[in-house]
Amino acid sequence: MKWTLAHRASMMNPSVLREILKVTDRPGIISFAGGLPSPLTFPIDAFAEATARVLRDDGKAALQYAASEGFGPLREQVTALLPWKVDPAQVLITTGSQQGLDLAAKVLIDAGSRVLVENPTYLGALQAFAPMEPDVVGVDSDGCGVMVDDLRRKALGADGQVNARFLYVLPNFQNPTGRTMDEARRAALIDFAAGRLPLIEDNPYGDLWFDEPPAAPLCARYPEGVLYLGSFSKILAPGLRLGFLVAPPALYPKLLQAKQAADLHTPGLNQRIASEVLKNDFLLGHIPTIRALYRRQRDVMLEALTREMAGLDVHWTTPVGGMFIWATLPEGMDGAQLLLKAVDAGVAFVPGAPFFADGSAKNTMRLSFVTASEADIRTGIAALAMVLRTALRSQPERTAA
Amino acid sequence: MKWTLAHRASMMNPSVLREILKVTDRPGIISFAGGLPSPLTFPIDAFAEATARVLRDDGKAALQYAASEGFGPLREQVTALLPWKVDPAQVLITTGSQQGLDLAAKVLIDAGSRVLVENPTYLGALQAFAPMEPDVVGVDSDGCGVMVDDLRRKALGADGQVNARFLYVLPNFQNPTGRTMDEARRAALIDFAAGRLPLIEDNPYGDLWFDEPPAAPLCARYPEGVLYLGSFSKILAPGLRLGFLVAPPALYPKLLQAKQAADLHTPGLNQRIASEVLKNDFLLGHIPTIRALYRRQRDVMLEALTREMAGLDVHWTTPVGGMFIWATLPEGMDGAQLLLKAVDAGVAFVPGAPFFADGSAKNTMRLSFVTASEADIRTGIAALAMVLRTALRSQPERTAA
Repeated sequence: MKWTLAHRASMMNPSVLREILKVTDRPGIISFAGGLPSPLTFPIDAFAEATARVLRDDGKAALQYAASEGFGPLREQVTALLPWKVDPAQVLITTGSQQGLDLAAKVLIDAGSRVLVENPTYLGALQAFAPMEPDVVGVDSDGCGVMVDDLRRKALGADGQVNARFLYVLPNFQNPTGRTMDEARRAALIDFAAGRLPLIEDNPYGDLWFDEPPAAPLCARYPEGVLYLGSFSKILAPGLRLGFLVAPPALYPKLLQAKQAADLHTPGLNQRIASEVLKNDFLLGHIPTIRALYRRQRDVMLEALTREMAGLDVHWTTPVGGMFIWATLPEGMDGAQLLLKAVDAGVAFVPGAPFFADGSAKNTMRLSFVTASEADIRTGIAALAMVLRTALRSQPERTAA
Repeated sequence: MKWTLAHRASMMNPSVLREILKVTDRPGIISFAGGLPSPLTFPIDAFAEATARVLRDDGKAALQYAASEGFGPLREQVTALLPWKVDPAQVLITTGSQQGLDLAAKVLIDAGSRVLVENPTYLGALQAFAPMEPDVVGVDSDGCGVMVDDLRRKALGADGQVNARFLYVLPNFQNPTGRTMDEARRAALIDFAAGRLPLIEDNPYGDLWFDEPPAAPLCARYPEGVLYLGSFSKILAPGLRLGFLVAPPALYPKLLQAKQAADLHTPGLNQRIASEVLKNDFLLGHIPTIRALYRRQRDVMLEALTREMAGLDVHWTTPVGGMFIWATLPEGMDGAQLLLKAVDAGVAFVPGAPFFADGSAKNTMRLSFVTASEADIRTGIAALAMVLRTALRSQPERTAA
């Protein structure tokens, strides 16, 4: 029996990341590889109380089919969490913010459409876009975010008109680099994009700042040209699969129709649990506890890196929020090869190449500082430095690679 | 600011059904229009107990990111519910069975691919397929299911080879007709399809039989050529958004990759709640209560139709399970126009035309017998007959329409 697959199926591939995580998912290993929030931050008791209340007071509605737009009170609560004025009618509750990427891909990408992403960028976005067969082009980024000069080169055709469908950008504590786009860069980006280049702004980590909130979202500056994606995965818990999008009126109806076709609606029970938990300014007390934990863990990892990597020609970012540090290995080293040795030594990370649209920059790696304990961070970074030292010693010809 | 939409976005349209349901969603109206299960059947207490247990014993895992394939114990429980031998490795938990349709569309449909459906068929399937821009062809059906002679005409090209990607079929208590494919028709369909035509078998209602279980699923007869879709929406509750698919090994990996890209995974909390509720043969006691309720309500509606529609040249199906009766009005009547008058008279149904791939058969309607009370069914059918009688009297020329 032969199934004839759609052409787009050839664009779909197993998540490199998930394949890597299988390698690293051994008992006893110290893993900096996951993109998972710390389960210590999950407000389990609040969920238990909220669920009991929802099922007792509103069980039939919570368990019935519901509106594709999402649960009304939760859509209003979303607008209250956002730092600019949003009409609840522009909010669509999604089954995780990953679904926002899937819906955007369906509505905005034709086969061959040029789609711009930061270089490097979130792997799940590349996966969500791939089935719609775009021509993905990476735009260079530095410590302040996506570089507008390179964006201009890649977004404009020979006629000076925009020839890309959108730029996908993660301005706050980016996955994978942990970098944040600064105010000047945001202003320059909007200056370039306004009126001609749509943006998809993905902001799952924005609330996880350590010292001060990041600059205002791109959507607050350019609401008619930005599709904004948000998530409850990092401030409540990912297992609910609750995200949302804020879309301009020009886009909302088509995203809604795509949502209806995709899964009818996001589970009503989950939406009501979140809505109940969010009452009484719950997040005002809860999010600071996440920030404090992650900040402490970041500090421990930065200290360990400084101590252990001395003299090894390794460089890393100093994230001011979020979950990730991005490290650059000596030129010519391959993060994927190093990972195999690291796993043997009991420590894991994610090699950086898969985060690049073109698979370049093999000498990079992503380190999550949020799930390992402080002691394990110290032990793990020391082990990683040892592996790296051995690899450097055994590869004197590496600079020629 | 102009957003350039993908071509497929023009294929997406607001759900006709949802637009209709807005009209019918007035206080005090007796509605036979919804496709909703009766909330009386939702095991709310069991959900409350299960959720408390899951969050207490396994909260961190339930709230963390999880495997795209689904929660292992639930995948095994699914195989135990199915009346043929299924390897849990072939089960993928989906965010409602609607997502199974979305994933299938992505993996199997190219623009212009011929896709066969029953005439009429489930509207949500047409919506899920539409964004991938298939050429949807309806295959005639009668009281025993899809007609194999017509299928042969529509599935084979001039060269005698299959030129369709698949046939989508709902063999049990079909939505919208309530019809069930009998044993002989199933055998004939498999005889035709085996080795050359893939099938998507959608079975959300299969457990809701009244007198005896339906004939064996198509997938049990032709596992390598059938993608099977199942749902917990009608036997537990739709608000969890829990469905599943059983896919042959040739198809499973691509569906899994599409699932990862679509929403990473179905909410782990919901999967664990269902898994917990399913323990100790819960459904063995629970499903018979749903069957008894729906059967009683079907009887009340059939009696009311017989009594009220006498002499009006209206015909209807006698479903042996599920949620729907399908009625055929006198030739030339338009169900959509009748609906407007019916709503004024305080009763609602769904006109049949949207369920046909070509919008034909306007003189049909779908009546759900599961959500209105017995008294309301009697009152509503009487009101509907009155509206119909008036319409017939005022349109003596209708047979010429």
